[in-house]
Amino acid sequence: MNGAESLVRSLVESGVDVCFANPGTSEMHFVAALDTVPGMRAVLVLQENVATGAADGYARMTGRPASTLLHLGPGLANGLANLHNARRAGSSVVNIVGDHASTHLAFDAPLTSDVAGFARPVSAWVHSSPSARDVGADAARAVRAALEPPGAIATLILPADTAWQEAESAAPRLAAPALAAVGEKTVTEIARAIRTGRKTALLMRGTVLCDDGLEAAGKIAAATGVRLMCDTLTPRMQRGAGRPHVERLPYFSEQVTEVLSEVELIILVGAKPPVSFFGYPDKASWLTPPGCRIATLARAHEDGVGALHALAAALGASAAEPKRVERAQPDYSLRGTLTPDFIMSVVARHLPENAIIADESLTSGLPYYEMTAGAAAHDFLNVTGGAIGCMMAVSVGAAIACPDRKVVTLQGDGSAMYILPSLWTQAREALDVTTVIYANRAYKILNTELARVGAASGGRNAASLLDLTNPTIDWVSLAHGLGVSAVRAETREEFERAFLQAMATKGPHLVEAVL
Amino acid sequence: MNGAESLVRSLVESGVDVCFANPGTSEMHFVAALDTVPGMRAVLVLQENVATGAADGYARMTGRPASTLLHLGPGLANGLANLHNARRAGSSVVNIVGDHASTHLAFDAPLTSDVAGFARPVSAWVHSSPSARDVGADAARAVRAALEPPGAIATLILPADTAWQEAESAAPRLAAPALAAVGEKTVTEIARAIRTGRKTALLMRGTVLCDDGLEAAGKIAAATGVRLMCDTLTPRMQRGAGRPHVERLPYFSEQVTEVLSEVELIILVGAKPPVSFFGYPDKASWLTPPGCRIATLARAHEDGVGALHALAAALGASAAEPKRVERAQPDYSLRGTLTPDFIMSVVARHLPENAIIADESLTSGLPYYEMTAGAAAHDFLNVTGGAIGCMMAVSVGAAIACPDRKVVTLQGDGSAMYILPSLWTQAREALDVTTVIYANRAYKILNTELARVGAASGGRNAASLLDLTNPTIDWVSLAHGLGVSAVRAETREEFERAFLQAMATKGPHLVEAVL
Repeated sequence: MNGAESLVRSLVESGVDVCFANPGTSEMHFVAALDTVPGMRAVLVLQENVATGAADGYARMTGRPASTLLHLGPGLANGLANLHNARRAGSSVVNIVGDHASTHLAFDAPLTSDVAGFARPVSAWVHSSPSARDVGADAARAVRAALEPPGAIATLILPADTAWQEAESAAPRLAAPALAAVGEKTVTEIARAIRTGRKTALLMRGTVLCDDGLEAAGKIAAATGVRLMCDTLTPRMQRGAGRPHVERLPYFSEQVTEVLSEVELIILVGAKPPVSFFGYPDKASWLTPPGCRIATLARAHEDGVGALHALAAALGASAAEPKRVERAQPDYSLRGTLTPDFIMSVVARHLPENAIIADESLTSGLPYYEMTAGAAAHDFLNVTGGAIGCMMAVSVGAAIACPDRKVVTLQGDGSAMYILPSLWTQAREALDVTTVIYANRAYKILNTELARVGAASGGRNAASLLDLTNPTIDWVSLAHGLGVSAVRAETREEFERAFLQAMATKGPHLVEAVL
Repeated sequence: MNGAESLVRSLVESGVDVCFANPGTSEMHFVAALDTVPGMRAVLVLQENVATGAADGYARMTGRPASTLLHLGPGLANGLANLHNARRAGSSVVNIVGDHASTHLAFDAPLTSDVAGFARPVSAWVHSSPSARDVGADAARAVRAALEPPGAIATLILPADTAWQEAESAAPRLAAPALAAVGEKTVTEIARAIRTGRKTALLMRGTVLCDDGLEAAGKIAAATGVRLMCDTLTPRMQRGAGRPHVERLPYFSEQVTEVLSEVELIILVGAKPPVSFFGYPDKASWLTPPGCRIATLARAHEDGVGALHALAAALGASAAEPKRVERAQPDYSLRGTLTPDFIMSVVARHLPENAIIADESLTSGLPYYEMTAGAAAHDFLNVTGGAIGCMMAVSVGAAIACPDRKVVTLQGDGSAMYILPSLWTQAREALDVTTVIYANRAYKILNTELARVGAASGGRNAASLLDLTNPTIDWVSLAHGLGVSAVRAETREEFERAFLQAMATKGPHLVEAVL
């Protein structure tokens, strides 16, 4: 077996069975190995940010890493923005990045670059295999590194000759690092703090926002009256009808301050203390109210779900029945112009059971987030690192991870332009993803931010740099160009019809909502 | 004046008057300053690789840096691949990258990243301004760093508070670093080596391939019979009717070996010794024939043009008349299927005088390069670093640098998908760029490479990863979606008609050539 086969076998052995690939010459042996080794699904993407975003989405939905296969430094570079988001999500990702053959590197050929240098800012673990015989073991180590709680980016650089030279064997799976347990003393102290009667919020992030963790938090809330909260850009949360309600911290700092104004104790469960997304000339970055105490129940790498159960037990809440969100179907009128709040009403009303919302609607979606609180039970995914051009790719990975669930991507038009090739992979893999493009034809959030930072100039250059008309982007043409069926909705009726049709039909759809 | 105004004024003062921008919140003051300071043309791009590629194209055509305005680490990351190409081109580029306000960085908000870490692999100079009062001087230093011969990438990181805080003034232009002169002794020795009668090739790269340098080389060739050569991926060269002919080294290593087989002396003028683009299991990386001597007339940072003139003088060739390429209009038949060589014949025959060819046609173009040798005089630009998704962006910068010249982008379909948003900027700025998409619907070069590296598997996964059908990309729809007029050509007649029409009409056009 050669190094490439050893790689693929070792990845499969370690439980990695999906590869989002955009290979080049230096990865051709790895590509060939995908055919000689069974068990790895290879998904072609046409730009690397789709590969890394898809791996992020896959990890968020499964807790397991997918691999990416990227071509040298520039290929990795093209995928860095969504690796930034994946890092912020705490997603497990294993990047396989080809490099020139070790014998070729000294010649500084045109594609030679500092691959490890590109990888470091986003990777918890970076390693270059010295020989084909090391590739298998290095792959197993990469997977273990990616599984370091809560999840991490591991980048394995493979010089081309490590692929074609002889390797002995594949490497066995390594034991995954365990979640650190939260000590009894911490739980007891936090239970005591809650019992003092301070106005308390549990601020949650990570797996605690799913399934069992959410149930435990719901019990605590039901028994003690603490508020359940999550941070603004949580990687994944389960919500909707039948689930305990969790308040999401708003985006703008002054709104966060308002929401937290009466809170006297914030208990962190996988979350960090709330801070402003951006710094502003005259606004605070640190958003915990003065006098409010912060206590940490579990850090991101600790067993937050276990800690919540222990806390529930310590508070005598284990048998409490969480208060559950009731199914709410927002009424809406078909009269009037098509607006973001109307769109969210339609999504909330018609979202199928167990769907996945991948949200990058930004200005168009944030104010209307609560409208989907009572929708059918669903998962909700955010742009965790703020690098836009994320969710159309995350939805690729989510749809591959969960083929029986409908994925609805709510996508601003400005950010969609960064990640357009996602649509092609959605079409090729016949993924059940519906993309709603909020075509407001502007970097609208920047118009807001221009004013917020006190920089509003009213001038021509600034206006031009935030404006996406001239020419107007035709999203239906773009989707058709990439093989995805698409409809333009200019009225409420048109949007409702298009969305309902997309919900009723499997496969990729795009709806351009003209705002 | 605030720091943002100081920045823009200082850049303009230093001769930087174009900014390819994709700003975000942290750059809003800089955006506002573009309106209060006259003299800077702001060009909006919808993805950062378009900004960096455009800056590369602008620098290649003017020898001067444009600036980019990018949003934090992820914004820079999205532009790294084309900065890799720009670095390999020796292009001068000044990146302005916003960062969080210095007061905000400690809070590790979602968009916080190692901006300098992202910048380092591609930048010769990286600096983060500590205060608004430093921004002007730092900008002047960045421009000087970018002008370090032959041209370099300078990245200036500006925390948001350096934009909004008070600055005293703009900074004056710094003297640009001079080209190092080549010593008389070097020239004399090389003249003597040529006179020995060894079969000699001048291998050239950089500004020596334009104007005056080319003339001097032509005189030397005419007087001594040395062969004029350039490397495969030279950033810019002037060629076509009336110019001395320069042999381009081919792409594949065995072809290079063949071309150089009889050469006994290679004289490097701005070039490095020829090496293989990739390393292969059983092929050489170092392509200079055994026994062939290598002598260096000028390194990339030295005055190659001056050295060629000095060499011509030393050889008594100053008055020689270069042999010039005659105008050749390839004949072609409209019978038969549409093929890459037909396309190149049409381009060669109908290219207008003084056009610019931006070439990323890869497998479809490389074998037919010589067909354009006798076309009307033109400039020819290559993907210098091999990071694909380059030329549609480079053409944006070239067209802005040379508004009176027709730009023809020869673009493979696989690589076009990386850089699609270029078309939107071409439409918005009404740039005179015609893009020919070679729609062979495959990563065709990789099919070749799969066999060359001995990895051909014949399997389903490998075939699927190199194939761009299912779905077929519709380039006409994509272009229309981005506001560019487009035509699909499936026959020779259709291609000829579409190309002629594009040559006859100003503004952006796209021709999808179905192969």
